[in-house]
Amino acid sequence: MATDTIYKASTTAPVNIAVVKYWGKRDPKLNLPTNSSLSVTLSQADLRTLTTATCSPTYQGEDSLILNGEPSDITGARTQACLRELRARRAALEAENPSLPKLSTMPLRIVSENNFPTAAGLASSAAGFAALVRAIANLYELPSSPTELSLIARQGSGSACRSLFGGYVAWRGGEQADGLDSKAVEVAPASHWPDMRALILVVSAAKKGVSSTSGMQQTVATSDLFQGRIATVVPAHMDKMEAAVRDRDFTAFAEVTMKDSNSFHACCMDTYPPIYYMNDVSRAAVRAVEAINAAAGKTVAAYTFDAGPNAVVYYLEENSGPVVGTFYSLLQGTNGWKDSAKSYDSAAVKLDEATESLLKGGVSRIIQTAVGEGPIKTDQHLA
Amino acid sequence: MATDTIYKASTTAPVNIAVVKYWGKRDPKLNLPTNSSLSVTLSQADLRTLTTATCSPTYQGEDSLILNGEPSDITGARTQACLRELRARRAALEAENPSLPKLSTMPLRIVSENNFPTAAGLASSAAGFAALVRAIANLYELPSSPTELSLIARQGSGSACRSLFGGYVAWRGGEQADGLDSKAVEVAPASHWPDMRALILVVSAAKKGVSSTSGMQQTVATSDLFQGRIATVVPAHMDKMEAAVRDRDFTAFAEVTMKDSNSFHACCMDTYPPIYYMNDVSRAAVRAVEAINAAAGKTVAAYTFDAGPNAVVYYLEENSGPVVGTFYSLLQGTNGWKDSAKSYDSAAVKLDEATESLLKGGVSRIIQTAVGEGPIKTDQHLA
Repeated sequence: MATDTIYKASTTAPVNIAVVKYWGKRDPKLNLPTNSSLSVTLSQADLRTLTTATCSPTYQGEDSLILNGEPSDITGARTQACLRELRARRAALEAENPSLPKLSTMPLRIVSENNFPTAAGLASSAAGFAALVRAIANLYELPSSPTELSLIARQGSGSACRSLFGGYVAWRGGEQADGLDSKAVEVAPASHWPDMRALILVVSAAKKGVSSTSGMQQTVATSDLFQGRIATVVPAHMDKMEAAVRDRDFTAFAEVTMKDSNSFHACCMDTYPPIYYMNDVSRAAVRAVEAINAAAGKTVAAYTFDAGPNAVVYYLEENSGPVVGTFYSLLQGTNGWKDSAKSYDSAAVKLDEATESLLKGGVSRIIQTAVGEGPIKTDQHLA
Repeated sequence: MATDTIYKASTTAPVNIAVVKYWGKRDPKLNLPTNSSLSVTLSQADLRTLTTATCSPTYQGEDSLILNGEPSDITGARTQACLRELRARRAALEAENPSLPKLSTMPLRIVSENNFPTAAGLASSAAGFAALVRAIANLYELPSSPTELSLIARQGSGSACRSLFGGYVAWRGGEQADGLDSKAVEVAPASHWPDMRALILVVSAAKKGVSSTSGMQQTVATSDLFQGRIATVVPAHMDKMEAAVRDRDFTAFAEVTMKDSNSFHACCMDTYPPIYYMNDVSRAAVRAVEAINAAAGKTVAAYTFDAGPNAVVYYLEENSGPVVGTFYSLLQGTNGWKDSAKSYDSAAVKLDEATESLLKGGVSRIIQTAVGEGPIKTDQHLA
């Protein structure tokens, strides 16, 4: 083996949008949550991070990361924790098998790119840390399972642990102080319920809101209603949601999704000083979903909102007509629609004027996507 | 006594704005609340209902009510309950003292007027039912105390029971099924803490929200966080608020006022489907109050919101500069300012652009008022 070899591995990793929300840490250092959460992994055809990890005996200096073309700081405690744990696992393999190249001793060069604008305000850290951990695990040829890697990715960004799986994923909050029981598990693969779709309405916020990292701890410290959420509301939502996914029961999936989003944002509003992530445009999206469901005479759409004003609307392929049709007829001038959207125009549901004008004025971009797979190894290397 | 005598009595009654909110009934028929509440009675110089009650042996037909110039239906169960209870008390007096004219047997004619536009969306039912009950009690020369009358007014409109007193008023929720312990008491008269001021920013809602009567019962039925509010949050807020009023501690008064409003609106948002009373303009008012307090380096203003987008900002006379000055400098084109407002312009606090443009675009009227007295008997009769 020539000493100028460059070892290389690449992967893509998906975004996930929680339907039972992660909000609150019981241990900020280890990223241990106050409650379990559950998410749907979204298709990497529409939203993904591609990351290439390389190392070489010829590399000089420190580890480095280039993110979307820009040199990025990796000296932060979160990233360092991930690199340290991955190196330790590689070093253990090298100790067991002296014939292995000593990759754990070489500087890492990591290059990462998202296929969606960060401006969209979609939590890119989940896909980013999942791709970082998965790419380096591939480079190091670690035998670790996705759940084992989720313990590492969690320390980079809590929700990143859920992006190591496709389909329907639970993050078991765990109870141990060392966090070894706080990890992601697959509730069901995408193939179990493949017709789940997501329509994302990207809403431009008047000004940047409180970061989720600081916001969630303000909630833990000051919201008097939050205890009820973590003690009784979320455990009940987790049970109902796992059953809904198991049974492919969209009505139950939708109700828990909407109620959990409402409960989360209610706790943000109950934080002191109050945190507002949803705005009038977000609320108009809620009214639109309610109108679509009322017109259908059943639940065909569910809204959920993360720590920002964007609306994510989950629906089943078979109900694309009223769901996609309604938003398309209103927002066809907006970027991001797939050609298929036009065909549903005729099924559009009429909304009230206030709701229509808020959505027309406030939605800046559309992302039409669906439930998807977990990280995928690729030979498409960056740099 | 000529049989054509017309018996007549008039009173004015005030509006009150709660700082610990009434939201939820344990008995909708008797208007028994799920929790106690506490309010500040506002000056009748700015906001009041004037009601004249008359009866006469010459009157024919049914009882009648003319409200703001329009004949108004009084056959509703709420109004009938008030009239029935008042008549029963009069009849008891007449039975004890046969020399009394039999007013309880005569039709009642009630005429009522508000000195503020109903359009303002201020809860006028509290002042309305307090004035109705107080006027008829005066007409019937009932010996009943304000607390005794509060048991009657409560059946007309829950919060009306608090408008029978001036100053700082608690509505003890009570526990009895018959509601005889669910009544208003004076926590402190206006004279105890006379320099309390209120600046009301009237915000035009895009469309009428859910009525509080139905909204609060939807919350009781569907909000998983609401139990925590009534079991622990409100009892703690009541204790702290009564102490804050007793000690004239504005910092404590303000914190409980803001937290209780946040908790109430959080429970509305946690209702399923969610209820939104505050809009982006309301939230801009919250940000403005936070900026005013930050600039002062202490708490000089407190926001609270009822079941609508209007902001009520409580402050002490001594802090009129930063509070009135900031809103006046921004909204001096808006109707309702008192001449004194100009003089505070120089003390205005600079707000961020998003907040300023939301307030400028969304505040339609200003009401500058203060803590005030309870119902006042008057010889100014309507009709």
